[in-house]
Amino acid sequence: MDATATIRELAARARAAARQLAVSTGQKREQALLTAARLIRQSAQELKTANARDLEVAGQMHLSSAMIDRLKLSDKGIESMALALEQIAAQTDPVGQTLAAYNRPNGLRVEKRRVPLGVVGIVYESRPNVTADAAGLCIKSGNACILRGGKEALHSNTAIAHLLREGLVQAGLSADAVIMIDVTDRAIVLAMAQAEGLIDVIVPRGGEGLIRAVVESATIPVIKHYTGVCHVYVHAAADLDMAERIIINAKCQRPGVCNAAEKLLVDEAVAASFLPSVCRKLRAAGVELRGCPRACQIVPDMKAATEADWKTEYLELILTVGVVRDLGAAIDHINAHGSGHTDAIITRDLSAAQRFTAEVDSSSVMVNASTRLADGGIYGLGAEVGISTDKLHARGPMGAEDLTTYKWIITGQGHLRE
Amino acid sequence: MDATATIRELAARARAAARQLAVSTGQKREQALLTAARLIRQSAQELKTANARDLEVAGQMHLSSAMIDRLKLSDKGIESMALALEQIAAQTDPVGQTLAAYNRPNGLRVEKRRVPLGVVGIVYESRPNVTADAAGLCIKSGNACILRGGKEALHSNTAIAHLLREGLVQAGLSADAVIMIDVTDRAIVLAMAQAEGLIDVIVPRGGEGLIRAVVESATIPVIKHYTGVCHVYVHAAADLDMAERIIINAKCQRPGVCNAAEKLLVDEAVAASFLPSVCRKLRAAGVELRGCPRACQIVPDMKAATEADWKTEYLELILTVGVVRDLGAAIDHINAHGSGHTDAIITRDLSAAQRFTAEVDSSSVMVNASTRLADGGIYGLGAEVGISTDKLHARGPMGAEDLTTYKWIITGQGHLRE
Repeated sequence: MDATATIRELAARARAAARQLAVSTGQKREQALLTAARLIRQSAQELKTANARDLEVAGQMHLSSAMIDRLKLSDKGIESMALALEQIAAQTDPVGQTLAAYNRPNGLRVEKRRVPLGVVGIVYESRPNVTADAAGLCIKSGNACILRGGKEALHSNTAIAHLLREGLVQAGLSADAVIMIDVTDRAIVLAMAQAEGLIDVIVPRGGEGLIRAVVESATIPVIKHYTGVCHVYVHAAADLDMAERIIINAKCQRPGVCNAAEKLLVDEAVAASFLPSVCRKLRAAGVELRGCPRACQIVPDMKAATEADWKTEYLELILTVGVVRDLGAAIDHINAHGSGHTDAIITRDLSAAQRFTAEVDSSSVMVNASTRLADGGIYGLGAEVGISTDKLHARGPMGAEDLTTYKWIITGQGHLRE
Repeated sequence: MDATATIRELAARARAAARQLAVSTGQKREQALLTAARLIRQSAQELKTANARDLEVAGQMHLSSAMIDRLKLSDKGIESMALALEQIAAQTDPVGQTLAAYNRPNGLRVEKRRVPLGVVGIVYESRPNVTADAAGLCIKSGNACILRGGKEALHSNTAIAHLLREGLVQAGLSADAVIMIDVTDRAIVLAMAQAEGLIDVIVPRGGEGLIRAVVESATIPVIKHYTGVCHVYVHAAADLDMAERIIINAKCQRPGVCNAAEKLLVDEAVAASFLPSVCRKLRAAGVELRGCPRACQIVPDMKAATEADWKTEYLELILTVGVVRDLGAAIDHINAHGSGHTDAIITRDLSAAQRFTAEVDSSSVMVNASTRLADGGIYGLGAEVGISTDKLHARGPMGAEDLTTYKWIITGQGHLRE
């Protein structure tokens, strides 16, 4: 069967399940999630066995150690998956919420009511916990999902998806609300992106190449982020000790992810006092520094940053360091060179914080906090389907609410158009 | 200058204005709208002179009388434009609204705040009032807009846009928040659809061909509707007099628009008593009827409907009439053949109304009201940028709120990722 036919068949099953889920009670969906959480805990051994098969193949494929690390399901990782499902289950049911309701002067009743999107396609790589997170948020929001994980995690993903399907069945819902695709070539992804009328939205997670391929071929809506070029700006009125802790955390705590800081901007007023010490500590943590001319003047042996450096997401221990004239220059620089993902200001000055949060055009804008905190779990969404740097529909970490749309329900007593 | 360069230059001006508008006070934007409304009333004579030039060219171009009718600016039409701007001005300012705000257990403050999208591109045909409606909603929501109206309305559109720009200037805002493109070839539309990073969303309004061309070439998000295949379903427990009034209004009051009814479904239980009289009246109003076998049995001389008829948006005085077994069959038929625009049930039965509104997957679902009421003005939005049959971002009539996104504002006291 070719990719288009495969997707058509799977999506038809998912759509039937979606119709059932859309009118199911929140209680049933909650029960499906709690049962899946329990089954995940009970099946820790089976999950680790499936994962061991993936790891064995990964070893033969000579994957990088970072990739193998992301693939590995530890006891702690299994517990986290179960916990995330329970947190998602505990949230308020978004389905059926009234977003607005009023009577018009002529007595016509207008209501805007939240409803599921329908069928959500999710394409991702490596980390098997995404299977539970994404499927869990889809079930919570009354959607069916079609999941296509990475080839390297197929056994783990299939085992996890099986438990979510079992949770659905035990709650009296259709197992086909969670469909894991076991075909892992690129053609299936493009077929998903063109499944107009079958899949309502596709969320690709992964490298920029994969995401661009999806966007360019898609005829259905795509929610995505390309890169995370995140900035930390140290304002003239910053608590410099806090600023140092934050940039070290934002850069070093996990450099390979999209919300790690890639750029440090320091206000001219504090550059000479701030930079020497923090740069010494960053270097001690293994960070390569590349600076603007002024930064290179202050910190000896710093490599000069090229124009490309200011827009690059390194995803490793490299940091570009710039000295800026003032708050306005920092905002302009971030809006011109950033990727609209997450940018932070460190300041004790209220009006500087207000101006920065108002004018920086990013999905998350932070005050006195590490960019690494941009995360659905940390924002209280239980998990995230992905992080969007798009402006339409959803922005930033996407939770269950972001997998809904609304309908207008209009009630009259024979109202006509005059 | 080629189309891409033209759009790049215009969009750069619009983006600068958008940055200013995004941080402007609601009071200033309100003042811009009220001033524009006043100027439109004061300039009625100039607007009619500009419109006369368009009508003269339209006469030479042998446009259809329906098109000329839509193009014509009457005193009443001018007053309606001014009134719509005042209604938009009177609405609550969507910019800066807090959509959610809470503290996380670790003290991190999370806020989801509504912000403008940035630059909105709108492509439309014929009716000059769209210029005022769309620009007004963009100003209200803190966005800049790039408008590309139909060639046939260029003088009228330019005159109206000039008054909106004057309103902005008198309120201390940049005139470039409203830019009317005076190039009317198709290339400029495609350049708009590919202005990644310059235009945030494009809303094409017009024929299906134009919209498909935009969607297929677009690299920026598109919000659209293709067709309005709207149904009126007469339930077994309907007030049949009301049902008759509603289907006649929905079909005949203005057949050339997207929310006019194209299909009448009648429950088997009332078909024989309902159809003869209503079909006589519809025919008297000039409506051609095409029916399913059962409808043709009940009503003499009815042409048999083809499979294509059930999915066709006629935009003229033609109606397909079907008899359905029951409520479930009506819902299945609408979800399979409709376009997700607007569908109505006529019933006195509460549970039938509840099931219909829950299960029909359309942007507007109506109970005992004419489909012709699907309209931003009627829903209380002041006007509409367009009607979306998409599910992502906005659905149904789009008002000022639908031209916004949000950002996450995160405030810590040195919070790090553990």
